[in-house]
Formats: sequence, structure tokens, C-alpha cells
Amino acid sequence: MSVDLKEWVRNVPDYPQPGIQFKDLTPLMAEPRAFRAAIDWFAARVEELAPDAVTAIDARGFIFASPVVDRLGLPLVLVRKRGKLPPPTVQKEYSLEYSEASTVEVRSDALSEGQRVVIIDDLLATGGTAVAAAELVEGQGAKVVGQVFLVELGFLDGRELILGKDPECEVVSNIVYD
Amino acid sequence: MSVDLKEWVRNVPDYPQPGIQFKDLTPLMAEPRAFRAAIDWFAARVEELAPDAVTAIDARGFIFASPVVDRLGLPLVLVRKRGKLPPPTVQKEYSLEYSEASTVEVRSDALSEGQRVVIIDDLLATGGTAVAAAELVEGQGAKVVGQVFLVELGFLDGRELILGKDPECEVVSNIVYD
Repeated sequence: MSVDLKEWVRNVPDYPQPGIQFKDLTPLMAEPRAFRAAIDWFAARVEELAPDAVTAIDARGFIFASPVVDRLGLPLVLVRKRGKLPPPTVQKEYSLEYSEASTVEVRSDALSEGQRVVIIDDLLATGGTAVAAAELVEGQGAKVVGQVFLVELGFLDGRELILGKDPECEVVSNIVYD
Repeated sequence: MSVDLKEWVRNVPDYPQPGIQFKDLTPLMAEPRAFRAAIDWFAARVEELAPDAVTAIDARGFIFASPVVDRLGLPLVLVRKRGKLPPPTVQKEYSLEYSEASTVEVRSDALSEGQRVVIIDDLLATGGTAVAAAELVEGQGAKVVGQVFLVELGFLDGRELILGKDPECEVVSNIVYD
């Protein structure tokens, strides 16, 4: 049975700030058919990209990346907010859609030279987090072959930001809001 | 092939504070055989408890709970730090092992009367988060039938705290440090 994933995304007006339409994925997580359909989609996209490892973005990215690595048997690498990973780590500061600058961090021995990496997150907004994560991955000599998102806020041009830094990266999303 | 999960836990002395031995699970996540063995173990424990839903604790609990609901076809409910979930939510404040008081939050319509719920987190320390999460679940009329952790710091008596509040709850862990 086919599942329309968009039906399981709840639009929350004026959250976390006036004028923002927040895309709440908790209804999708609470419906096993929808969640499995989402993971089916993620796993197929990741398999096509044939990576050596999957990098998951703190924290909602964990929810989608973790079943993918369980299904495909790939290493899982966490990109976390600052202060959540024990040393040794490397960090990257970036700016966000609707808050102060933030910092992402990865274990400095998480990846190795020449590895193909797919980055997974729930949602692509301005692309700030995605580009910062990619820079951390590339800083270890690995190659980001794809960035995969369930939801893309097309009007924020995150795709263009990612491709502007790395035209060879595949940017893939399932549900696009224009 | 049998995997000794304890071999994939890295002990980090004096992190995040002097005197604390932090248990770093990122090596386990980076080794697909170890990660799958951990998920095999979680899924078997959850299946024995026959829940109607799984609740995952922000953020490392997401990593273990999400593949379990993918495998078993169960609803996933997030217990998050304050300010991460859109309204309507309910909150519970609690104290932590080595920091200020914190607050956990769940969607106020996440669970329903009489549902059997298993709570998953990576690690049981003092049990403060676990008990706060259980109180949020029970506040919606659901029943916490089990709390399942990969790692238990036995010397912090978190098990006793959980059982002191709810003697019928099954507290299950894989790796125990005495």
C-alpha cells in the first residue's frame, strides 16, 4: 500500500517564531506505515549513492539515519551540537535560519581519507547545517557524495547553497515545499 | 558471529567533568556488526515487553529506538529537551547527574489511555531522565511496562530510583558497570 508521506507532516504556523511554518514530523514517526515508507525511501536513496559511511545530523537526523545503517550495514557517524561529543573533536561554526550562530562537531577520527559519505537530516532549510557538516566530513579527507533529506523548504535555497560549495554533491529530498 | 558489545564502548576519563568516566558509544555506532548486535538485543527485549508504542529519549535514545520501531512496526514517540517540540506539549523538570536541572517534554497528544509503552535510552545513570520521562508517559494515562538501556552505571542506583517510583516496571540493560 502506497503512503503519501506529506499527509503525515504537520504544519505548525508561527513556530518557533512568528512567520515561520514549522514542519512537524512527529505524526509520521507515530504512524509505523508512514515511518517505514520514509525509511524505505531513505535506504533506497543511500544505496544508490553507494557510500562507505552515513553521517547523521543532531538530533532529528539520527531518527532517519539510524534505521538506514541498521538495514544497510553501514557505519554511523554523528555530527552533534557543540559539547555533546567527548574529545578529540573538530568543530565548525555556522548561522541558522531563525536563531543565533551554532556550532557542529564531529569526532576527529570518525572518517578516513577517500571514504564516500552520505549526510542524512530530516529537513533542508537554508543549508547552513548541511554545509557545515559537509566541511567537517571533507576536512577528514572524505567525500560527501550525497545529502539526503525527507523535507526540503525550497524557498530557502538550501540546495543552491550546498551545490554552490560542491557542485558534484547529490542533493535529494522527498517532500518539497515551494 | 557473537559480538562483545562492551568492547565497542570507549571509556573517556574526566569527561564532561573531573571524576566522571564517560561511556562513549560512537565506536559501537561506527562498527556495523556491533550496532546491529545492539539493535538485535534491543528489539528482542522490546518484543518481549509487547508494547503498543516506544518512547525515545533525546538525543542518543533516538539512535537505538528508531531502528527498533522500524524493525517491529511500532509507533515512535519522542521525549525531547525543552523547546524542541512544537505545541501542544507537557513538560517535566528533573535534576541530572552532572549539570543543572533540565526539562523533558512530550507532545500532549502523543499517547493514549491504557497504552503499553517501552522507554529506550542509551544509558541509565541516576535515573532522573528515565523517571521524568515515565511521569510524562503515565500523565497521559499510558503504562510504562519497561525501560531498556544499552548501558547501566549500576553504582549510581538509577534502577532503584525507577523501581522506587514504579515497582512493576521492567528495567533492562545490556552492559552494567558496577
